[in-house]
Amino acid sequence: MIEGANFLGNTRSKENSNFLQAFNPATGEALPDKFFIATTSEIQRAMEMATEAFEAYKALSAERRADFLCRIGEEIMALGDKLIQQAVTESGLPEQRLIGERGRTVNQLKMYADLLREGSWVDARIDRADPERQPAPKPDLRNMLFPIGPVVVFGASNFPLAFSTAGGDTASALAAGCPVIVKAHESHPGTNELVTKAILQAAEKTAMPEGVFNSLLGRAETGRQLVLHPMVKAVAFTGSYKAGRAIFDAAAARKVPVPVYAEMGSINPVFLLPEKLHSDPSALAALLAGSVTLGHGQFCTKPGIIIAKKSDSLERFKQMLTEHLEGHSSSWLLNRGIAENYQKSRETLFNQEHIQILKHPTSEDEISKSAALAVVEASGFLENPAMHREIFGPFSLIIECDDQTSFEEVASSLEGQLTLTFMGTEPELAGHRRLIDIAREKAGRIIFNGVPTGVEVSPAMHHGGPYPATTDPKFTSVGTGAIRRFLRPVAFQDCPDELLPEELKEGNPLGIYRLVDGILTK
Amino acid sequence: MIEGANFLGNTRSKENSNFLQAFNPATGEALPDKFFIATTSEIQRAMEMATEAFEAYKALSAERRADFLCRIGEEIMALGDKLIQQAVTESGLPEQRLIGERGRTVNQLKMYADLLREGSWVDARIDRADPERQPAPKPDLRNMLFPIGPVVVFGASNFPLAFSTAGGDTASALAAGCPVIVKAHESHPGTNELVTKAILQAAEKTAMPEGVFNSLLGRAETGRQLVLHPMVKAVAFTGSYKAGRAIFDAAAARKVPVPVYAEMGSINPVFLLPEKLHSDPSALAALLAGSVTLGHGQFCTKPGIIIAKKSDSLERFKQMLTEHLEGHSSSWLLNRGIAENYQKSRETLFNQEHIQILKHPTSEDEISKSAALAVVEASGFLENPAMHREIFGPFSLIIECDDQTSFEEVASSLEGQLTLTFMGTEPELAGHRRLIDIAREKAGRIIFNGVPTGVEVSPAMHHGGPYPATTDPKFTSVGTGAIRRFLRPVAFQDCPDELLPEELKEGNPLGIYRLVDGILTK
Repeated sequence: MIEGANFLGNTRSKENSNFLQAFNPATGEALPDKFFIATTSEIQRAMEMATEAFEAYKALSAERRADFLCRIGEEIMALGDKLIQQAVTESGLPEQRLIGERGRTVNQLKMYADLLREGSWVDARIDRADPERQPAPKPDLRNMLFPIGPVVVFGASNFPLAFSTAGGDTASALAAGCPVIVKAHESHPGTNELVTKAILQAAEKTAMPEGVFNSLLGRAETGRQLVLHPMVKAVAFTGSYKAGRAIFDAAAARKVPVPVYAEMGSINPVFLLPEKLHSDPSALAALLAGSVTLGHGQFCTKPGIIIAKKSDSLERFKQMLTEHLEGHSSSWLLNRGIAENYQKSRETLFNQEHIQILKHPTSEDEISKSAALAVVEASGFLENPAMHREIFGPFSLIIECDDQTSFEEVASSLEGQLTLTFMGTEPELAGHRRLIDIAREKAGRIIFNGVPTGVEVSPAMHHGGPYPATTDPKFTSVGTGAIRRFLRPVAFQDCPDELLPEELKEGNPLGIYRLVDGILTK
Repeated sequence: MIEGANFLGNTRSKENSNFLQAFNPATGEALPDKFFIATTSEIQRAMEMATEAFEAYKALSAERRADFLCRIGEEIMALGDKLIQQAVTESGLPEQRLIGERGRTVNQLKMYADLLREGSWVDARIDRADPERQPAPKPDLRNMLFPIGPVVVFGASNFPLAFSTAGGDTASALAAGCPVIVKAHESHPGTNELVTKAILQAAEKTAMPEGVFNSLLGRAETGRQLVLHPMVKAVAFTGSYKAGRAIFDAAAARKVPVPVYAEMGSINPVFLLPEKLHSDPSALAALLAGSVTLGHGQFCTKPGIIIAKKSDSLERFKQMLTEHLEGHSSSWLLNRGIAENYQKSRETLFNQEHIQILKHPTSEDEISKSAALAVVEASGFLENPAMHREIFGPFSLIIECDDQTSFEEVASSLEGQLTLTFMGTEPELAGHRRLIDIAREKAGRIIFNGVPTGVEVSPAMHHGGPYPATTDPKFTSVGTGAIRRFLRPVAFQDCPDELLPEELKEGNPLGIYRLVDGILTK
């Protein structure tokens, strides 16, 4: 059933004798299937196929590409329970979560299909000619976005479906008109294979050029080779800071540098303002416990620090949150590396000066997976960069402040974040404008009286943020805006109408929004 | 009159004993004014002033910023002939050219002011809440673009006004809401000082925060220190490939990398299709001679190679173009470095195999400044990367092709370009669709039956292109789109209306275009 092959377009290829195996996080045991690591020549062939496919793929109408995306969703659904069970086995995530994630994956594909069908995403701009202008005639200029070429997508450990093989990066790149080469995540290569086959089925049924999608197996070295390949035009990655920065550095040092859109997580601070905290510490504790332990703490938007003013209400909150985390049924983490890192980074933090531990795993069995909680005074947090680092897993750190100034100092000391959250009554939020203003400089999304986990997939979402949350804060990896990562403008000057793309022809045959002589019009 | 100072906000500072002097390219002599190279502490203070100014500047209304930009234009005009004469002396460019460039500079400022006043440039997106949605309520999301913070702008040798102190990069950064630190070009520091004073006057008269604009003196080392400064959020540069790549590398290797928008020029190929060439070789030769020698060949869009099919018409064209270049009255180049590079890179090219020289400076006096022309067969060009490099100055290389396939091979071999031009009758352009399609992958702007020099400043312009033309082909440095380089999106989730920026408030008080639930509306 599972072949363990690389997919160079439609060709299954297993040149290497080296292989990798997935592990079942629930049992810690290796799964039997062998996945053969892509050789240099397989990488080369995949890149050549993608490059050749680009010629035909970019020339297809947006409608054709939209059909392809929707069909991918249908083929994924057609895999049925087989896909869910494979993902459960490889990721250790619960079935219901993966069913939900599959729904999100399919919806993302549909969202980009809708965007393509509407058509205005090409950002068409037209400045008409004025032959009479003095001192020189004004030329006719017409500008729109075009796909950049083959994109390498790295599968993410924590989203085996929605941010891996047919996830948001793949969907937005394919929508843009760019062929994709996926580097499967080594934790869930079987899931990758099933989804790859669904994509290839969809490509065949909608008559897409072979090579529009390719999937390769391997670890960091395979990724490095892909990032350095001269035919690659962009890279999308979701994962750890360390891996993301290594990819960014490799891509920047190329003879021809390519952009890397790496989403590397963050600590997603949550500010609990005093009145709000006072009004219902128990409810806030329950809400945040749910967010900290959602997906067993393995979301890039997990609240990693919680900032609050010292008070009796805070004491109550701490007690309640501790109880919630003690009541949380521990689960295995996504893979061994993540479990080891969780344990190691948590213990490192616990050994820092001024840290007070509120909830700590006690039994040996719990040590690599149990939820944990600690508290530190703002002064301790401010002076110690080690406390600003993300701990991936069901952990959070409470920062105790003396006053509003202390809130602002903590906010000012933060590195770039995906999200920043404020829990506050309306009057006290209005009284913390400066704090919110500081937050805006630090994050890609500001949440009010909600939790950062649960990233809505929609046009107004921004899932990104200043470094080190991402390598490029101008772009989102979730929502319709994600397509922009794989597009670049080209202007046509005095081009005969018949040679222009449909989007730029004088008659606007596609009926899209265009900026004509500075005025937005259909 | 000229003080030779660094401007840290309104403070004149000359801490250093090291200074630089400008040269008059017309005489080769050093000009008397001393310009004191910024010390590390002056750089630090300028960065601190810009960072502090950012707090107040970003909070101003777009209208206030628009007034500031327009006032800068007025203050530049108020400098009158003094500015023009200073620029003539330092750049060696003719008075009429600089008067024209001043007009462009002022128009650019006005264009960004208009963009700010219209207001839709913030790309506002609103997805309204749906509390009833299953399985989870949908939050309210509101997203718009915000300024990124202090921007370092490098003055350009070939545009002492329009791409230097108050040029396109400065104008677009200030429009975005970002304070600017200009590293003055060492060729025209006096011009920089006059324009700096105009900007500071405008800032004072429109009550801008001090530090919104700063100007520093120095060479490459000053630039390097600025690029590495932790308070810098982005860098804009127009100049040579070598300097641009060094800046890009330094910025990418930072602990917190920052984007570098470097426009590094290109060879701007011009394809002469056979029928068009046959119809009037003399007219084409005159047109291209004008473009090659415009600004004495010192534009980044100068046609550096001209590709044509062998024919009697091509022989006629070569002869006519040679005559035009012989008739072109030689002028000094912008500075000594450029003159030396022009001579050296031209001689290197002339020593390549298969090169046939059509026009070569003969007298010693002419050697560093005279226009030149050479020809090579396509096969020679294809096999020799040295022929693909830009030669900055009044030079072009004709590539002779045997057939249409040869055109496509030349196009496919090209590196990234700012522009690509086709001269052809409508029927033969239609017959070269594949060639035009290849061109689109290589360039930021495709011109039909015109010349690439003369870059229109308007919404549909794209002045950019794939590496090595620029370090980021997604962005333009000319036209309204240039503002995007200095902005990043922030999303607000369930934010109380009163805390939202005006642009995102439910009532749309600014009356701008917004994408509301996927529909563009005012």
